[in-house]
Amino acid sequence: MSLSEFCPRYHDAVELIGRRWTGAILRAMLAGRSRYAEIRNAVPALSDTLLSQRLDELEREGLVVRTVVASSPVRVEYHLTPKGQALEQAVAAIAAWAEEWLPLPAEPGAPTVR
Amino acid sequence: MSLSEFCPRYHDAVELIGRRWTGAILRAMLAGRSRYAEIRNAVPALSDTLLSQRLDELEREGLVVRTVVASSPVRVEYHLTPKGQALEQAVAAIAAWAEEWLPLPAEPGAPTVR
Repeated sequence: MSLSEFCPRYHDAVELIGRRWTGAILRAMLAGRSRYAEIRNAVPALSDTLLSQRLDELEREGLVVRTVVASSPVRVEYHLTPKGQALEQAVAAIAAWAEEWLPLPAEPGAPTVR
Repeated sequence: MSLSEFCPRYHDAVELIGRRWTGAILRAMLAGRSRYAEIRNAVPALSDTLLSQRLDELEREGLVVRTVVASSPVRVEYHLTPKGQALEQAVAAIAAWAEEWLPLPAEPGAPTVR
């Protein structure tokens, strides 16, 4: 498909990845975070409610599988499926752009950029 | 920066690109659309209000420049800056993932996927 045609699949993909916090969650999982608390700790300011909701969405869309490990206490883990892993290149390309083009976070007290 | 650390610049980038319709607008502009009507026609279902708002945002964030061409009637064009053009790789990576992993749009009458 040429870049000049509207592509509903691209549109769905970019809005899925860009959904509030989803990009950050995917990045933490691509880096190997699998336990709920690990993912939450890797994404500051993300509430439990929203993390659960996002993980459920990603599971429904086939990017994440939830597994219960029969340890004591029972442990719940989240892993990327091949479909989720396949986002690595897109995430890396966005991260590379951000590092080249976006300003470093403002120092405390400095005027905010956005 | 390692993938395991939270990166506020990546976070800003992914949520900027993923903002409703922004990804589709960027893709149309990367494909060379520059007139307002061309961009609007390349993104079905996008209202005038939302397109204007998104173009303003992209201009404020330094991804788009608005130029007035002194023709008769006056013509307004929008072009990507180098910062905007630099998103091409990220947009291409997301599009490649979408084409490999997302279902084709449902036929009319078929159950919707999302």
